[in-house]
Amino acid sequence: MSFENQLKAYIEKVNCELEKNFSERNCLQKSVYDAMSYSIMAGGKRLRPVISLAVCDMLGGETEDALRFGSAIEYIHTYSLIHDDLPCMDDDDLRRGMPTCHKKFGEANALLAGDGLLTGAFEYLSDMEKYKSVDPVTVIRAISAIAKAAGCDGMIGGQVVDLECEEKENVSEETLNYLHYRKTGALIRVAATVGALAAGASDADIRTVELFAEKLGLAFQIQDDILDCIGDESVLGKPIGSDAENGKTTYVTLMGLEGAREKSDAVTAEAVGLLEKYGEKADFVKKLALYLLDRKS
Amino acid sequence: MSFENQLKAYIEKVNCELEKNFSERNCLQKSVYDAMSYSIMAGGKRLRPVISLAVCDMLGGETEDALRFGSAIEYIHTYSLIHDDLPCMDDDDLRRGMPTCHKKFGEANALLAGDGLLTGAFEYLSDMEKYKSVDPVTVIRAISAIAKAAGCDGMIGGQVVDLECEEKENVSEETLNYLHYRKTGALIRVAATVGALAAGASDADIRTVELFAEKLGLAFQIQDDILDCIGDESVLGKPIGSDAENGKTTYVTLMGLEGAREKSDAVTAEAVGLLEKYGEKADFVKKLALYLLDRKS
Repeated sequence: MSFENQLKAYIEKVNCELEKNFSERNCLQKSVYDAMSYSIMAGGKRLRPVISLAVCDMLGGETEDALRFGSAIEYIHTYSLIHDDLPCMDDDDLRRGMPTCHKKFGEANALLAGDGLLTGAFEYLSDMEKYKSVDPVTVIRAISAIAKAAGCDGMIGGQVVDLECEEKENVSEETLNYLHYRKTGALIRVAATVGALAAGASDADIRTVELFAEKLGLAFQIQDDILDCIGDESVLGKPIGSDAENGKTTYVTLMGLEGAREKSDAVTAEAVGLLEKYGEKADFVKKLALYLLDRKS
Repeated sequence: MSFENQLKAYIEKVNCELEKNFSERNCLQKSVYDAMSYSIMAGGKRLRPVISLAVCDMLGGETEDALRFGSAIEYIHTYSLIHDDLPCMDDDDLRRGMPTCHKKFGEANALLAGDGLLTGAFEYLSDMEKYKSVDPVTVIRAISAIAKAAGCDGMIGGQVVDLECEEKENVSEETLNYLHYRKTGALIRVAATVGALAAGASDADIRTVELFAEKLGLAFQIQDDILDCIGDESVLGKPIGSDAENGKTTYVTLMGLEGAREKSDAVTAEAVGLLEKYGEKADFVKKLALYLLDRKS
């Protein structure tokens, strides 16, 4: 199968699973289910569950359980977007061209929809009867890894540091790495962890795919900063590095557009290099890394 | 040991455990840990973990694991208070006589502190190495029960229905039961469930303590409504049933003060009656039910 078709097939699997889980409900608290469903079915790259599926396939596992683990990460990713968009955070009206959850359903419902997705992820993960082949110890390891990645030393911690950096003039590369390792990196990394867990991988293989995903996450973030900068330049005619003007430090403001491109290329190459030992089986995952590096949005 | 001393001993155990888990941290995201610690250490009755400990003791279990399960429920209870106090929800400035989390730390930090406590509960629950005697299958059952109780068909669902009822003129007793069964009832009920799970109880015993806790939760809510009404009357000189004037339906507005008192007494008696079969071992838990019925705040 071509890379594009395989990617499509993975995304289709994830969307099917999510649609099944977020079908319409008829109950007195229907409004919160509607808000959750609106946000999680609004599209997106499904990057995290795709990583779980692809890593599991690469390591020779059956993907049913990886799909479950990865989809739970997508719930958490979606809750984080809903809460980030709230007026007390980024105060965004639009996401992916559609009204944000609180614009559509009101702030209270959006807050609760986020809480519901976060809680729902663990409800879904701990429904032991639904697993195909993983044992209870593996399920607990996955729950633990996901909770850590989403928590205060993971995604939430990164978000807190990000908010504090917005008020600072000088943010070091070290702090920027610390922040992104957690804010976007942690969920990408754990997507690989749980893919490997679902495949029954050895500790050595788990470490390899985690290191791969760590580098992938960093490259992804640098690429995001580059796209933001180019977007600003091409769409609004602002000079390169304009993010610095609103006080936000990014990899582009720290190392320039060329420097950021070089760094992103180098980190992606390192990530891909880690997978050499898996031979052809790693083809899709390697191509996924290069695809993310080349993306335009 | 007297009831009062036993209650104190349980509360002390819970406070020790929480203090250990929320000791000061030194990291870049320190502010979110500070906000979490501020809210969870602000006191409170520790009703939910006390129920877990007492049920476990009643059923002859070792309480170390019940303490862990019950404390995780206290994390979730605390997160729900932080989010409920936010401006887009109840917009409260004070809780237990102290500034609410968002008044003290700002809205963004309070939102993230709530998210952090909710996520932290599952991180803490899934740290398998820390359990004393329960096996992985029991831990997953506890995680599943807690997530369900906290989720959209539990506490969050009740909160959603409550928000919607505020805008309605006529709320039936059926809807009020539906709402409170979830909003306050679900966490109280699951506190008993996990206490029984920690004790390795039979399914029959689990069902009994859940039914007990269900009735306890209902009596607790009716009592809350009575205290609100009496408080309004004695403190502010407002007439009985004044909640009806701000449009809020309560058990007192539905059945009158005397009717509510009778209902609360009857439900408590039913709850206590369920525990007869445990003989003397149920003494503390029975007294706890009567204590909650007699409370003044």
